[in-house]
Amino acid sequence: MWKKRLEQIGPLSERWVEAAKDRVDNLVKPKGSLGLLEDMAVRAVAIREEKRPAFDKKKVVVFAGDHGVAAEENISAFPQEVTGLMVRNFIDGVAAINVISRSVGADVDVVDIGMKETPEDLQGLIRKNVRRGTDNMAKGPAMSIEDAQRAINVGIEMADNAYNQGFPLIATGEMGIGNTTPSAALFSALLPAAVSDVTGRGTGIDDDTLSRKINVIKKALEINKSRVKDPLSALATLGGMEIAGICGLCIGGAAKKMVVVVDGFIASAGALVAMKLNPHVKEYLFFAHCSQEIGHKVFFEKEGIRPVLDFDMRLGEGTGACLVMQVIEHAVKIYNEMATFEDVGIEPGN
Amino acid sequence: MWKKRLEQIGPLSERWVEAAKDRVDNLVKPKGSLGLLEDMAVRAVAIREEKRPAFDKKKVVVFAGDHGVAAEENISAFPQEVTGLMVRNFIDGVAAINVISRSVGADVDVVDIGMKETPEDLQGLIRKNVRRGTDNMAKGPAMSIEDAQRAINVGIEMADNAYNQGFPLIATGEMGIGNTTPSAALFSALLPAAVSDVTGRGTGIDDDTLSRKINVIKKALEINKSRVKDPLSALATLGGMEIAGICGLCIGGAAKKMVVVVDGFIASAGALVAMKLNPHVKEYLFFAHCSQEIGHKVFFEKEGIRPVLDFDMRLGEGTGACLVMQVIEHAVKIYNEMATFEDVGIEPGN
Repeated sequence: MWKKRLEQIGPLSERWVEAAKDRVDNLVKPKGSLGLLEDMAVRAVAIREEKRPAFDKKKVVVFAGDHGVAAEENISAFPQEVTGLMVRNFIDGVAAINVISRSVGADVDVVDIGMKETPEDLQGLIRKNVRRGTDNMAKGPAMSIEDAQRAINVGIEMADNAYNQGFPLIATGEMGIGNTTPSAALFSALLPAAVSDVTGRGTGIDDDTLSRKINVIKKALEINKSRVKDPLSALATLGGMEIAGICGLCIGGAAKKMVVVVDGFIASAGALVAMKLNPHVKEYLFFAHCSQEIGHKVFFEKEGIRPVLDFDMRLGEGTGACLVMQVIEHAVKIYNEMATFEDVGIEPGN
Repeated sequence: MWKKRLEQIGPLSERWVEAAKDRVDNLVKPKGSLGLLEDMAVRAVAIREEKRPAFDKKKVVVFAGDHGVAAEENISAFPQEVTGLMVRNFIDGVAAINVISRSVGADVDVVDIGMKETPEDLQGLIRKNVRRGTDNMAKGPAMSIEDAQRAINVGIEMADNAYNQGFPLIATGEMGIGNTTPSAALFSALLPAAVSDVTGRGTGIDDDTLSRKINVIKKALEINKSRVKDPLSALATLGGMEIAGICGLCIGGAAKKMVVVVDGFIASAGALVAMKLNPHVKEYLFFAHCSQEIGHKVFFEKEGIRPVLDFDMRLGEGTGACLVMQVIEHAVKIYNEMATFEDVGIEPGN
């Protein structure tokens, strides 16, 4: 499925971009004075190819997966069981992502794409487990190419569902104890970047754990060298289920001309794989915020991307992306509803 | 009135700050992982001195005034009449501030505090005109000390009204063709800073107009030198009615323990006067965004303030502040509604 969807993704329509820019410049305000809000509105309109798109329907898709490297290498501040405990909180509606999504008016899909154990009793959990956690990438590939493809397809399926339910705007979320480690490995391999430049403290590890984490990533890159040949094999070898799911959500969203908001550091790793598979994917993505995780800045610099917010967040779950879905909604409302200079009989100033 | 209110403003309660920090650190997320949202919630709770404050009621107060320096010195991209035309748009609900405030769920008060002419037919305009525009500060003081005090009092009255209507959260907005010029003059005098460091292109002036604008501000500072003795005399000599109104709104809001969101460059000039009159005012203010107007960065650096957004906006009206009122609302909802580690039986990671 994923290859077909990838082929469907082309550049934004220049005609739509130009038409949207024209309208923005005729709204009754000094040219360019709404800054980033103008750029966001133009791109959102061009993605949707609609004259007055509505973005009141929003959804965040939270993919949960576990990591062999976290189970075996002691690189996280939290034990692996916390993935499952947090997923329970998501289902119970008491985590940060639940509060923020309610507050911005977004639906939440919680997807088990690769949890080690799935509690039986979680009502509403979307059960799409591809495998029970990854293998330890410091000892071999995290997963097979086939598993990575299956996980990408789950992401695409989630985008398709959202599309069929009429959502024009979706966001990526994730939960997976230890998942800054595979993300850093992917950034190092795909940007590329030095491991120490893209490896940070995750949920809050100390100096010793950080240096162990850096060594584990270096080892993973070293022993898997011959396996990493292209974005897909990098994802399989160094990635995680939730990262592959996010990659799929970006591909699926772009293929359906949806606006996709990418959350933080881990989500950006998934988005990067999608962008490397088809560079046009980038045109459909908004990067919500610059994470406090040090490697995120390196990613933005290397890819020439300006994130919307800079809030020192490093939670994941999709929290930053929820905030930004709403900013996009506001930006497009301005585009849709403001009067033009002609409407009100004022001469444009420049 | 303003002196009495100033005296009522003390520091935030340390007890409330500590209690709020404690709760934030016990919410079920890695410590500090919500970054700025955590800081915003802590401060908002401490300002309100409420265990679970609600911020769904929001109001932006837009002060409109005219400027003698704009009428006589040709320093703006738009003619002075545009102040009145834009105020008409605010009343008609078709300007950017109307769309954004509707979109974030904020009320808008539009206040004529110093317009040169007030159209008779504008229903809903709050008529508090202190004087028919300022005098040209390049030829003498912009207004008398008494007028400045009256304009500050109008701002306080607007804060009091909002307080009496039950608003915990207010924002500053403004409209006044030419008002980056008095704002730059105030920044230069009060920060202090070199005129060329705080003078920018406003609504979009060309190089010639910019150098004229810089010279006009230098001249105004020079000929008014003996009059500028303290924050109030600086405001009277170099300021504007809407800037004085914003100063009053900051004072009145802080005195009533309301959360006050300061919009952009011009609003920051009004806030700076208030902060110079009583440094504790700052603790009640959130600065919405870093404007594209070059002097704004200088203000933030000199005052050690981190603005919430960096969107290259330079519209004024209160547009950026409206977005940020909603971010504060979200931050406090997270604070109020998230589960704690204890609630869900997870061990804090650090």
